[in-house]
Amino acid sequence: MLEWLRQYRRAQLPGDISAGIVVAMMMIPQGMAYAMVAGLPPVVGLYASIVPPLLYALFGSSMTQSIGPMAITSLMTASVLAPLATPGSGLYMVLAAQLALLSGGVLLVCGLLRIGFLANFFSRPVMNGFTLGSAIVIALGQCDALLGATLPHFHLPSAVLGIGALVLLLLARQYLARVLRGLGLPPAAADVGARLAPMVLVLAAMALSYAFDLAAAGVRTTGAVPAGLPGLNLAISSGHWRVLFQPALLIGFMVFLISMSGAQTLALKRAEKLRSNHELIGLGAANIGAALTGGFPVTGSLSRSAVNFAAGANTQLASIITAGLLALALVAPTGWLALLPLPVLAATIIVAVLGMLDLETLRTAWHYDRADALALLATAGGVLALGVESGVIIGLMLSMGAIIWRASRPHIAVLGRIAGTEHFRNITRYPAGTTPELLLLRVDAGLFFANVEPVRARIEEELAAHPDARNLVLVLSAVNAIDTSALFGLLELNTMLTGRAIGLHLAEVKGPVMDRLKESALLDKLHGQVFLSTVMAWDALTLPKPH
Amino acid sequence: MLEWLRQYRRAQLPGDISAGIVVAMMMIPQGMAYAMVAGLPPVVGLYASIVPPLLYALFGSSMTQSIGPMAITSLMTASVLAPLATPGSGLYMVLAAQLALLSGGVLLVCGLLRIGFLANFFSRPVMNGFTLGSAIVIALGQCDALLGATLPHFHLPSAVLGIGALVLLLLARQYLARVLRGLGLPPAAADVGARLAPMVLVLAAMALSYAFDLAAAGVRTTGAVPAGLPGLNLAISSGHWRVLFQPALLIGFMVFLISMSGAQTLALKRAEKLRSNHELIGLGAANIGAALTGGFPVTGSLSRSAVNFAAGANTQLASIITAGLLALALVAPTGWLALLPLPVLAATIIVAVLGMLDLETLRTAWHYDRADALALLATAGGVLALGVESGVIIGLMLSMGAIIWRASRPHIAVLGRIAGTEHFRNITRYPAGTTPELLLLRVDAGLFFANVEPVRARIEEELAAHPDARNLVLVLSAVNAIDTSALFGLLELNTMLTGRAIGLHLAEVKGPVMDRLKESALLDKLHGQVFLSTVMAWDALTLPKPH
Repeated sequence: MLEWLRQYRRAQLPGDISAGIVVAMMMIPQGMAYAMVAGLPPVVGLYASIVPPLLYALFGSSMTQSIGPMAITSLMTASVLAPLATPGSGLYMVLAAQLALLSGGVLLVCGLLRIGFLANFFSRPVMNGFTLGSAIVIALGQCDALLGATLPHFHLPSAVLGIGALVLLLLARQYLARVLRGLGLPPAAADVGARLAPMVLVLAAMALSYAFDLAAAGVRTTGAVPAGLPGLNLAISSGHWRVLFQPALLIGFMVFLISMSGAQTLALKRAEKLRSNHELIGLGAANIGAALTGGFPVTGSLSRSAVNFAAGANTQLASIITAGLLALALVAPTGWLALLPLPVLAATIIVAVLGMLDLETLRTAWHYDRADALALLATAGGVLALGVESGVIIGLMLSMGAIIWRASRPHIAVLGRIAGTEHFRNITRYPAGTTPELLLLRVDAGLFFANVEPVRARIEEELAAHPDARNLVLVLSAVNAIDTSALFGLLELNTMLTGRAIGLHLAEVKGPVMDRLKESALLDKLHGQVFLSTVMAWDALTLPKPH
Repeated sequence: MLEWLRQYRRAQLPGDISAGIVVAMMMIPQGMAYAMVAGLPPVVGLYASIVPPLLYALFGSSMTQSIGPMAITSLMTASVLAPLATPGSGLYMVLAAQLALLSGGVLLVCGLLRIGFLANFFSRPVMNGFTLGSAIVIALGQCDALLGATLPHFHLPSAVLGIGALVLLLLARQYLARVLRGLGLPPAAADVGARLAPMVLVLAAMALSYAFDLAAAGVRTTGAVPAGLPGLNLAISSGHWRVLFQPALLIGFMVFLISMSGAQTLALKRAEKLRSNHELIGLGAANIGAALTGGFPVTGSLSRSAVNFAAGANTQLASIITAGLLALALVAPTGWLALLPLPVLAATIIVAVLGMLDLETLRTAWHYDRADALALLATAGGVLALGVESGVIIGLMLSMGAIIWRASRPHIAVLGRIAGTEHFRNITRYPAGTTPELLLLRVDAGLFFANVEPVRARIEEELAAHPDARNLVLVLSAVNAIDTSALFGLLELNTMLTGRAIGLHLAEVKGPVMDRLKESALLDKLHGQVFLSTVMAWDALTLPKPH
């Protein structure tokens, strides 16, 4: 906690200041836009960009992560709340904050339980498919705002403004960095400058809006943004805890996955160390902070964090500066914010989410591992056809299935003795000798519930293939753990083999595994022996016994 | 399919006939009782015991599994349907069948997708905790029927009958087998005979009911049971598909897990081979059959299957005989069934579910692996506090978490060279030599999304511990697969190491893994080489380069 502050060096300050300013300029239109995606008044997006990053700076572990509203969590918020309240209504705002509170609570509890290893839950294709589907849903959802009416209708001034903004932003994304470099800016500065195009466009649109009174021409604008900092929000709808709980679990999960995948990408570039349990606590605190200041679920945004990184952020001080500037913007007169035409805001959203599309993963997966590519498409298709929550669940099921499938296929080798040595090796890979009365099996994975049945089935197969075996030795040199299910599996295997008059022996049991087994009934009941080494088992079970 | 019929031997017939008769006698009270648990008229339990086992006999793979109503699936059915319709109403019956249809469809699809490996999903403690919690919920749920009124009230004649039956059944469970053995019956027959105590008691209660007109004394009885076979049921509530879908997923999952865990226990005793994908299809067909004959979700019952097994069942012919006898019972006059006092039926349910309690797993887990014991208690507690559906979800989350935790901790060894040989071994276990400019890491697990970050973190740690390393060799002798996420992980690792002027090399890449990698950009971009063996990497990277 705040380790970065104790070790702060003066040389880090300029980078943090410039990044703080740049991200604040990016955050103003983005915060308002993502509040709009979530079905909330634009100012709520600014509220959610002040306290959450401060709390994250206290507890989180990434130095460059920029915490605040994010497109996908906003979409999930809207999808959860739409059936429960009217967008923009008082109840809707209360429920949005309550959702952030619950999600934050879940994240905090997970962090205290130290289950940050769950960050590795979604495969890259599944995460990519989820992002792809969500980006398309968000972009389609902005078409009405872009055109000022519901298709096939459109409101001409709004549509001209919206589509014009869209074209300008797409051109800026494609060429602006190059143009700025041509004008003599250093490459890094040119890249960062190009990322500010939405803010410049938004300012220009506000000026147009003011000069030509676009609102009078029927163009919808953000409308009055109340000045002042967010107050303490303690409003709760006590009847909605239960209905919000499961969605909060899913949102908390995605907040963590989205934030970690972005932070990992950036951490890798600087060999920075992330601590997933600290991330959980940081994100939990940030979301609880969002709830208490009337916001909605927040997370780390890769696009914003990448700008923060590129603009020179060295520590979380950059995010603290950003939050301070946003607070200043709210304390200062906010009349100018009211002028922003919604079609232009919609254009910035569409261009932002198009930036999240990354077809490279699909292309690579398609050539490298078709199953991964299909998982990507299934997840994206699930989001599009069934909604964003179902998309998460499909992603969960696909990931879960893949993990269990792998876990249930442990590598098992039949061992033989390398002639003239005390070494035992896999007979399919080495010229190793066996004897028919003895079967040596090495299991190359910890024994636990997901593989105990497959291991037993394999043992059955090998016994069927070695009908003369009177003794079975399980070589446990690679077994780091045996859980309770596997213990019962071994007990049952022992009973079955006893019934068939086949001895069951263990060899090369690791120290910690042996300590555990001594607490169980297995060693007493074992119809066989425990050998220190495979060669001792071989010698004892193949030599003729003394009479 | 029907492999057992093609290979049928005459010697198997007597066992199948006796088992078929015994199980039919057990099934009549049990079917009616479990229908009652599910909130359905007793006759529905008999309907669900006729067609489902016939379909299972066609498609399933266990020879001794007895398919029909089961306590836990009945409880789950009641818990799903209670908020949707009034127990016993026409809509309730339609929804019960629809739930079986959906569950059966899910099972069938899973079987066709060949994802039977999911049978290993629940650890034994989680399954045991789930059963424990469910048994307690079911037993508590029968107390009103046992006493003929809602506590603290009771209806004296009902309570006397119910508690009397309960005491008799408990005594029979404890002593009857011993008494029968004392009377000269062979042990196996005595055990099976003791299992028929509920049927004998039920017959006695019916006689009492008839002789003393218990119904007139206010004791509730099953009431008129319509004679005749179940008709074809095609009734569907089209408005309920969506709300039934998720519960049907959970019920299908539990139908499979319950059936498989029972079948595995029995299969082990005879070294019989189960095919989990056939089980899925058999159970799917059975549940669809239950739906089409107006039943409700069915599965294999361990207690009934164990009696089937003990009574000599050799093939599914035993279950076909059971189904035939039940059909006969329905075609014959059914007036006698109407006389059965519900307090006695409740007593049979309570004793049956008490038989599912197995505190041995908890005791063993408590001494052997405290985490497993806590998972058991958490699942049981979840069922008791939050309901049976939440119990399944808690079990899913605990199992999932355990699998990911294991998957995310692959074993990684720093290798050194055994002096004077070409062998390389883990330096913490063998006296193996290293050189500071070369780091050899062997990863002892397939690389995939759940371990790619932990592996990367470990590589970072080892690089920090070996600051002079100019080359890193990943020894992939134990890596059977590299998925798309891990491929991206390797690409990013390569980029990072290139930036630090450290070479990244691969050694001992397995054939199939190499074939895959050739389809990717990794080999082209690799800032290093691919070596056939570790010794070749060592020689190339430690010898002074020729000038």
